[in-house]
Amino acid sequence: MRGHSEPALSSPVLDYLHQLHARFARVKQGQVATYIPELAKANPDWFGICLATASGSVYEVGDTRQEFTIQSISKPFVYGLALEDNGRETVLGKIGVEPTGDAFNSISLEPGTGRPRNPMINAGAIATAGLIAGKSPQTRLRRVLETFGIYTGRPLKLDEAVYRSESTTGHRNRAISHMLRNFDILTEDPSPVTELYFQQCSISVNCRDLAMMAATLACRGVNPVTGKSAIRGEYVESVLSVMETCGMYDFAGEWVFNVGMPAKSGVSGGVIAVLPGQLGIGVFSPRLDQHGNSVRGIRVCQEISRHLDLHLLNRPPVGKFAIRRKFSGAEFNSNRVRAVAEIDLLAAHGQRIRAWQLQGNLMFSTAEVLVRELVEALESADYFLLDFKRALSLNESACHLLFQMFTKFKARGKTMVFAHHGRVPLLRRFFRIKLARRFDREFIAFDDTDAALEWCENAVIRKHAAPRARGNPVRISDYKLFAGLSPEEHAAVQKLLKRRSFRAGDLIIQAGSEAREMFFLASGSVSVNVTLPDGGQRRLATFAPGMSFGEMAMIDRAPRSAIILADTDVVCDELAREDFERLGETHPLAKIKLFSNLCIDLSNKLRKANRELAVLE
Amino acid sequence: MRGHSEPALSSPVLDYLHQLHARFARVKQGQVATYIPELAKANPDWFGICLATASGSVYEVGDTRQEFTIQSISKPFVYGLALEDNGRETVLGKIGVEPTGDAFNSISLEPGTGRPRNPMINAGAIATAGLIAGKSPQTRLRRVLETFGIYTGRPLKLDEAVYRSESTTGHRNRAISHMLRNFDILTEDPSPVTELYFQQCSISVNCRDLAMMAATLACRGVNPVTGKSAIRGEYVESVLSVMETCGMYDFAGEWVFNVGMPAKSGVSGGVIAVLPGQLGIGVFSPRLDQHGNSVRGIRVCQEISRHLDLHLLNRPPVGKFAIRRKFSGAEFNSNRVRAVAEIDLLAAHGQRIRAWQLQGNLMFSTAEVLVRELVEALESADYFLLDFKRALSLNESACHLLFQMFTKFKARGKTMVFAHHGRVPLLRRFFRIKLARRFDREFIAFDDTDAALEWCENAVIRKHAAPRARGNPVRISDYKLFAGLSPEEHAAVQKLLKRRSFRAGDLIIQAGSEAREMFFLASGSVSVNVTLPDGGQRRLATFAPGMSFGEMAMIDRAPRSAIILADTDVVCDELAREDFERLGETHPLAKIKLFSNLCIDLSNKLRKANRELAVLE
Repeated sequence: MRGHSEPALSSPVLDYLHQLHARFARVKQGQVATYIPELAKANPDWFGICLATASGSVYEVGDTRQEFTIQSISKPFVYGLALEDNGRETVLGKIGVEPTGDAFNSISLEPGTGRPRNPMINAGAIATAGLIAGKSPQTRLRRVLETFGIYTGRPLKLDEAVYRSESTTGHRNRAISHMLRNFDILTEDPSPVTELYFQQCSISVNCRDLAMMAATLACRGVNPVTGKSAIRGEYVESVLSVMETCGMYDFAGEWVFNVGMPAKSGVSGGVIAVLPGQLGIGVFSPRLDQHGNSVRGIRVCQEISRHLDLHLLNRPPVGKFAIRRKFSGAEFNSNRVRAVAEIDLLAAHGQRIRAWQLQGNLMFSTAEVLVRELVEALESADYFLLDFKRALSLNESACHLLFQMFTKFKARGKTMVFAHHGRVPLLRRFFRIKLARRFDREFIAFDDTDAALEWCENAVIRKHAAPRARGNPVRISDYKLFAGLSPEEHAAVQKLLKRRSFRAGDLIIQAGSEAREMFFLASGSVSVNVTLPDGGQRRLATFAPGMSFGEMAMIDRAPRSAIILADTDVVCDELAREDFERLGETHPLAKIKLFSNLCIDLSNKLRKANRELAVLE
Repeated sequence: MRGHSEPALSSPVLDYLHQLHARFARVKQGQVATYIPELAKANPDWFGICLATASGSVYEVGDTRQEFTIQSISKPFVYGLALEDNGRETVLGKIGVEPTGDAFNSISLEPGTGRPRNPMINAGAIATAGLIAGKSPQTRLRRVLETFGIYTGRPLKLDEAVYRSESTTGHRNRAISHMLRNFDILTEDPSPVTELYFQQCSISVNCRDLAMMAATLACRGVNPVTGKSAIRGEYVESVLSVMETCGMYDFAGEWVFNVGMPAKSGVSGGVIAVLPGQLGIGVFSPRLDQHGNSVRGIRVCQEISRHLDLHLLNRPPVGKFAIRRKFSGAEFNSNRVRAVAEIDLLAAHGQRIRAWQLQGNLMFSTAEVLVRELVEALESADYFLLDFKRALSLNESACHLLFQMFTKFKARGKTMVFAHHGRVPLLRRFFRIKLARRFDREFIAFDDTDAALEWCENAVIRKHAAPRARGNPVRISDYKLFAGLSPEEHAAVQKLLKRRSFRAGDLIIQAGSEAREMFFLASGSVSVNVTLPDGGQRRLATFAPGMSFGEMAMIDRAPRSAIILADTDVVCDELAREDFERLGETHPLAKIKLFSNLCIDLSNKLRKANRELAVLE
């Protein structure tokens, strides 16, 4: 891999391409194209192979930086631009999509309409060039060059000598363009169109560029190295379709059978092949067979496809893969540390919350599995949490299914809640359009799983809890850690406590500080947060009145490991370490009870963590 | 969904098919085939739609249980059987794979060789029937029927009336078969071959059968409902290739462009379409267009493809999806509870272990991402754990890459360890063949992640630990919970302990029992296990000498939640609950120290669990 610092170990992928290169460099059949003198200058032994993956790896061996003109490989890419400029319908009105079984320079116009059979033969490619938008010939050429430059990830230029030579000798193509003008496929002076066609064929590229162009098509139009979009995703399938059926001229059937990847070749010796969603291949070797295809290019594509098992039609089943894990609110809870009454309520009713963590690409086939599970789970729960944290994409078909489930659930009094919806922006847009004015009220979505889960828990608790007085601070005798103390012991402990107040947002404990005290929360809410490597914060726990915090570091004398913040205005009682230690001397049995309560509390937390570890595994 | 109990909520997928059915039922164009009287009897309004997914969902609306004869839709399936019987090379020698641009009954033999152009035209299908193995015509017919029955998941029969009618009127097909005999494409009497062809076309199926046949091709030959294999996976891509290029006769280009799924139609009104890896569609409506294709069938396929976004060439990038998570041995540890010295060693050197949990289908594009990360991680670690617990499949291309990494790593003194290799049986077979006699020594693999991780940890500890004496039981004064006790307190506690011995395999604590005691481990190893819902056991923790176990349930008086087993011969000291409680009265400060140690121990365990929860999230 160039462009990165050389790793200590060569990749087996690169080893494999080196072996292929050595093996096929021995193939000496075929002739360099000679119909214009510039092409005839090519060294017949030039040979490059480049493979670029959808995840952005680029492997190249041989003459991958040797420049040559792109020739017919330009056709599908200009066709893509024409689709963007005019839409599918207009383009189909001018150019068909049927293979001809004829050679590349066949005129093959439909009887009557004069519509070229497909955009991969010269007649169709010239008609395509006539569809490129732009006021002047210069603008149109610039647009083609810029688009190709996004595909390759580097600026490209014309090879002026080749262009002049093509233009000087291109009588047959001029004849075709006049035929197209005759049938009103071209509606204006055909000369500038023909020139644009000669120019697009004369763009100078190298073998790495070809692989990047192919990989960009494999990534739905996004260059996997630069992340820039060269063509709108919706048109990629159309470009690949004409490559699939018409790209290899008169042996499409055999190519699909043996190689199974949409492909395109050019007379200067280039070949590209695309495996959608996975990778792109570029090969360059100027020796051509009698069809005008690179001899080594074809054989390398066949060999790579077979050896790496890349046939388009050979796909493992997607199965239930979209569902990373699922759990109920009885098995797994939010990081809010709850009072005993709430814990009991969640243990009893937590299964009314069902959560699905989704992953990968959500499209019809993967979303259908989720929808089926939702249909089956209907009666078993009231809150349905869909977490998109690990989703890579969501298409419109999946949106439709989810929206329909949302509507059906709503009609039955069930609530669907979304977490990490920012990962799948289409979902929000789709729901906003469909729900219109009801959107703000009905689309319940959170930026993270924990907040979404807590929302569901609170809803379940509200639904099942007995109404009770709120707002009064918890009395000291109700602190969980003081359970079982005698009145005298209570009084003794109470004397050691120092009442503290904090405002919402205050820092109560700083990470890294020495742990000189622990706290008992009388009213309000505090949360424990850690700073993430990326600078963000993650909430580890939220405490409610009656609970204590900060005791772990105080007892084992470790520095504070997290930040504790007041979420609301807070009243709490502080117990200093020295006082806690002294308690053992004055009231040892009280201290034993405190410790016993603390052990029980830690045990419960540890059991919960272990239960959740089992769910996550 | 029939065949299941009706769910309370209809699936939006089924709703959608109902809408489609209602919409296209209004289409009245097209004529029922009349070339034999039996076909002419079809009700032109019959109309069924069925969609079957790779995960085994089947959605059907309309006349999906109406029987009809399969006709030309038999061709790709018999072609698949011929490939299995003869191999690709022999079949390609007899029948080409190029589209003809001609109609279904075109003779289209290659000049010179007489090879039919492809297996989807009648000439090619008759040549295919001639390749079915079996001693007698009865055997060959039975093999075809049985194979089709695996595809559909139910036994099938001939429609004898249609067969007789086809046979009586099939002069053109007889002519074709004699031409094939003339060119030695058929090498024996062509009559029984022609009869088999008439018979395969006369097999009685329904619309659901068609969808199941298509879904079976989508699942690499495995029926997604029954799990039975109808055709070896390696031949599926060839069957789908001829469907893709030749299945829709003379409008292959438009079909690929608009629908983008390999398909096949039959003159009785059936159409199938296959989206590899995802789903199969069957439509039945006997009104045919001038090409002999079902009018509604074609339009339903087009509509489903567009609406559900099913185009074969429109695939989201697979990206880094094979890597579910990764961690180092410093972040995440096995369930072995280790002595402090070992914990310190793992904290210092645990990062020499790197683990990758893999998921989904491992093929070239997804394995390449792993290989790249392994290459980059080479210097940073010594032990590389690959966990296949969540892998769905692994193909030969991925095996090659992994074996090459294994070899490169080995040469540099690095160790690759595999967990859950049973999920990907090809890996073991591949390594066994490649490593031959070295296999038993060099292929380090475990049935679960925890065991694999513990093996790596032990290797790291052995590498970095100072040599020390082994085998002597830990002294009571060295028990972790007794840290900080004075000699008098030690003596007091020691009096309460009762020495116990267990043999390897003994049950020390039974789940569900009352927790009357805790234990201190003097020598040997014990482990905590829970019984899984499937009846298996999962190890939660393993304890080493010096540690205590069973204290949590003893203190909070919960029943025992897990089984504790002696892994080896074990010596331990038992402390009864009553004695522990009484200690507070006689030696309160000793009890406070014990509790304080216990809190520190629980805190450490809780911190580890929280750290691991963060890794798993």
